[in-house]
Amino acid sequence: MPSYRPPVDNVLFLLADVLGFYRHADLPGFAEATPDVVEAVLREGARFCEEELVPLNRVGDREGCTRHADGSVATPEGFREAYRAYAAGGWIGLAGDPAHGGQGLPYVLSGVMSEFVTSANMAFGMYPGLGQAVIAVLWHHGNEEQKRIYLPKLVSGAWAGTMNLTEPQAGTDVGLIRSRATPAGDGTFAISGSKIFISGGEHDLADNIVHMVLARIDGAPAGTRGLSLFLVPKFLPNADGEAGTRNAVTCGALEKKMGIHGNATCVMNYEGATGWLIGEPGKGLRTMFTMLNEARLVVGVQGLAMSEVACQNAALYARQRRQGRALTGAAEPEAAADPIIVHPDIRRTLAEIRGFNIAARALALSAALKADIARRSPDAAAREAAEDCLGLLTPVIKGVFTDRGFQNTVAAQQVFGGTGYIAETGVEQFVRDARITMIYEGTNGIQALDLVGRKLPKDGGRAITEFFQDVGDLVKKHEGDEALALFVAPLNRGLDDLQQATVWFMANALGNPDHAGAGATDYMHLFGLVALGEMWVRIAAAILAKGEVAPEALRSDLAFGRVFMERVMPETALRLARITAGADTLMAMPAEAFADLP
Amino acid sequence: MPSYRPPVDNVLFLLADVLGFYRHADLPGFAEATPDVVEAVLREGARFCEEELVPLNRVGDREGCTRHADGSVATPEGFREAYRAYAAGGWIGLAGDPAHGGQGLPYVLSGVMSEFVTSANMAFGMYPGLGQAVIAVLWHHGNEEQKRIYLPKLVSGAWAGTMNLTEPQAGTDVGLIRSRATPAGDGTFAISGSKIFISGGEHDLADNIVHMVLARIDGAPAGTRGLSLFLVPKFLPNADGEAGTRNAVTCGALEKKMGIHGNATCVMNYEGATGWLIGEPGKGLRTMFTMLNEARLVVGVQGLAMSEVACQNAALYARQRRQGRALTGAAEPEAAADPIIVHPDIRRTLAEIRGFNIAARALALSAALKADIARRSPDAAAREAAEDCLGLLTPVIKGVFTDRGFQNTVAAQQVFGGTGYIAETGVEQFVRDARITMIYEGTNGIQALDLVGRKLPKDGGRAITEFFQDVGDLVKKHEGDEALALFVAPLNRGLDDLQQATVWFMANALGNPDHAGAGATDYMHLFGLVALGEMWVRIAAAILAKGEVAPEALRSDLAFGRVFMERVMPETALRLARITAGADTLMAMPAEAFADLP
Repeated sequence: MPSYRPPVDNVLFLLADVLGFYRHADLPGFAEATPDVVEAVLREGARFCEEELVPLNRVGDREGCTRHADGSVATPEGFREAYRAYAAGGWIGLAGDPAHGGQGLPYVLSGVMSEFVTSANMAFGMYPGLGQAVIAVLWHHGNEEQKRIYLPKLVSGAWAGTMNLTEPQAGTDVGLIRSRATPAGDGTFAISGSKIFISGGEHDLADNIVHMVLARIDGAPAGTRGLSLFLVPKFLPNADGEAGTRNAVTCGALEKKMGIHGNATCVMNYEGATGWLIGEPGKGLRTMFTMLNEARLVVGVQGLAMSEVACQNAALYARQRRQGRALTGAAEPEAAADPIIVHPDIRRTLAEIRGFNIAARALALSAALKADIARRSPDAAAREAAEDCLGLLTPVIKGVFTDRGFQNTVAAQQVFGGTGYIAETGVEQFVRDARITMIYEGTNGIQALDLVGRKLPKDGGRAITEFFQDVGDLVKKHEGDEALALFVAPLNRGLDDLQQATVWFMANALGNPDHAGAGATDYMHLFGLVALGEMWVRIAAAILAKGEVAPEALRSDLAFGRVFMERVMPETALRLARITAGADTLMAMPAEAFADLP
Repeated sequence: MPSYRPPVDNVLFLLADVLGFYRHADLPGFAEATPDVVEAVLREGARFCEEELVPLNRVGDREGCTRHADGSVATPEGFREAYRAYAAGGWIGLAGDPAHGGQGLPYVLSGVMSEFVTSANMAFGMYPGLGQAVIAVLWHHGNEEQKRIYLPKLVSGAWAGTMNLTEPQAGTDVGLIRSRATPAGDGTFAISGSKIFISGGEHDLADNIVHMVLARIDGAPAGTRGLSLFLVPKFLPNADGEAGTRNAVTCGALEKKMGIHGNATCVMNYEGATGWLIGEPGKGLRTMFTMLNEARLVVGVQGLAMSEVACQNAALYARQRRQGRALTGAAEPEAAADPIIVHPDIRRTLAEIRGFNIAARALALSAALKADIARRSPDAAAREAAEDCLGLLTPVIKGVFTDRGFQNTVAAQQVFGGTGYIAETGVEQFVRDARITMIYEGTNGIQALDLVGRKLPKDGGRAITEFFQDVGDLVKKHEGDEALALFVAPLNRGLDDLQQATVWFMANALGNPDHAGAGATDYMHLFGLVALGEMWVRIAAAILAKGEVAPEALRSDLAFGRVFMERVMPETALRLARITAGADTLMAMPAEAFADLP
């Protein structure tokens, strides 16, 4: 069975020494998050993940969820108790508003827990994760009554949540949604339609499930501008605020899928179910985006989390499995063979993953800190700067962390040889589970288009200009530092490649947007590499600043960082070459060239 | 359900116009393989794959194999009938020696069928594929009696075959094998031991199963030099040459695994089973390598095959699925949305896969032709040159085709969005099935070491020198050709990168073999890109030579080739940069840095 040890020490170092987390004590909730409190919270969270969630991961994969004839859905053995314990531990409401029973701690800590929980048991973690996304929408857009009724239940985890966008004909293109909302005359709406791929649409973990549903009010225009967001509870709240009458929403089927078997992926049928409008009519997509943006960051972190747990297990295996001899002669001649960690190709594999994981964790924490600032800072300029940065980073973190996270699970599986293909080992489950992160909450192709088509040009390119400035300043600051040269030089080259790519888009994509479309995925990855490279310069500087007293683990991290800068960063040049190839060859081909329809 | 249309036309074009297949009529069996015969054979093979094997693919995945209490194993519904029909069609013995009932046709055609069968149903295709590998060993190394008894049965498919190398403690490192062979005094041996991961170790398809087993004769030295190869049939042949008494070899368990569920992956227990020595004692590994080398080419082709079928299905989906609008304005304004094939990112994905598939098919056919020459040519110099080239290409085809083939199945799955994660769609099965190709018959890390450590320096670098010469000549030949410039220039750059990498190894890896180990995987991919680029120059030249009469499909192929040269070939520079990063950072880290053992 795979094991997992949450990287608490790495998080504590990144928060304190790289991100200056404790310098934000002026933000609400941050003063309470002293180093002692943060460490205590994370160690307890780590313990819960290791002891309660890891043992349920294989069970969840094997058993999956079961839909009964009455439409009810049973989660795998043990999930129910674990969910109750997780909720009781206050983890769902960790960063929630104290006015609704939350602990009010920084969102950063909630982000850390997302990583730990996902590494331990991704399918499980999606249930409370969706509840947190619903909390975010209601907190931002719900009216006072909605907040009063729903937020305490969601924050405590007594009730769970879902997001309902997709319909068979409307995936990426939500403008094609057909679900309808008919005004009932009493302020409520009767919701009708069928939604697919609804994670946690039905289950036995919570007393109620609060669905956030995109639908079209009768008479509303076609396309996205006709969409409104509705709250549709599984059970209508009664006068006491408890789950009352059953609403007309049911799970019609469970999808059989490649992974995350422990999470119920449902077809949801709405047959005149009672719903309440959230936010303004016709603004449903915008309202939903509060949830989507937060969910996209979480999905990015899921990519990191799977990369981390897969790498931990591969590294343990590589130290224990004995096959062959070191190329330079037997390392342990007394044994029948050397552990495979002596092989450069195995080390390369593991070091490249670790080099990504550490920088990705720093970047994810940095983004979560921006989210805290954007939500909590009293300073409007600080909020705007944080929003700008977060807007740019969200598609990058979602797309790059999940693409690389998946690749890393595959690379980690490879370390196991044939054993990695066997279900019992558990690493092939990581691969299957991680695969969905590249798809859901907007495929990575959509993330790339969001970055290139929306986030780059937004506000006259204010955010990307600021990003270039920050990275450029960092390079300048450390330019003369011999000890950091191996980190700074590749970042500088990467920044140059990214700037060239940006200029190329400005020169070419305005005239022909297909050039932006053809280069979007490469641009997203180029951006991600520069952002990760930036993190490595910051991390390396922080480690070197500790001098001789730096713990052994940090000095190893430095070596992983070097591997990342030496071997992964040169990819920026490839990405630039691919971007400047443009769209002409691709778009000149007739559709039939790709496939003749039967 | 996924569909599949074997690329017969592409194969016919590559054979006739790119590889000069029909210029080899002097080789035994080639004179019979006229264009008409080749086309008829391939069209009939294609029909069989489409009609008989495709419909069983999802069934095989869903049902898997079942081991009964008596150790017998049932294959999925329909496999038995399909295997009988496949054998009756003469497909297993297509290239087999007519002396043993084979059709004596070129091995090239057998290679083509490997691709078609794998695309249609990879788990099924492994059963006859292993029989063919056993045929190759017996044909090369069996004595006359062994050939007489076993080859006709294997060639007809009445009996099936397996390869038994792996034991729990001996995977990559076969020198650790513990299985024993005790001389029985009558020329036979009593084989004892336990083998794992044995594909097709037990099943209900054939009347007998012929196991090729690596074991150590009592008193033989430790390590690979003590290994001998034994033939151990499930049923001992009786005087009539039919399956007689049951031998003491049984299937102890089936592995539950990520994919290829329709193929029985067995734990095989040998309890004093009767076996016959094949080849010389102590030369077992060398004897087995006849089988392994052929199997590695087939596994490389499996990577291509999965890439092909996944891409075909993704392309069909992309033409049918409507979401969003072309970036340049609605392509089909009368419909609610455009087919997603209008999006540059979707086209890029599909075109990069197609660009790989066509060149990979050409390279695989070219390697198969070398195998024919190496086996059948009366000219010793021609045989040697073919062997040299094949030795170099085998690890490249195995490693690069399966790494890229898997990536391509993942990319094709991505085109489907959420639908691609659902089992019913079938594309996620392609991903799970394709994953094993990177692992079995020697992990891709081992292929890279074989290339760099063994094949490069072999005979003073004769083979690689010849390869450089060939590619260099091709570049020179077309250097002034404007119409080919977009193909020739990237190949020239790639060749330069490959030569630089080779020189770097010569300068650095002799002193420290870890430098070769750390760069081996990148070198293998760099080599593969140059070899594929070479194919594209040859293909493009052949298409352009047809002038205006070139069919539409070939002109589209030219565009896919351009995409490959523009977007994939620049990766050679990245590979070179990674190789020259060397091993120092990787090897300086203590093993504990990768994972502290708990």
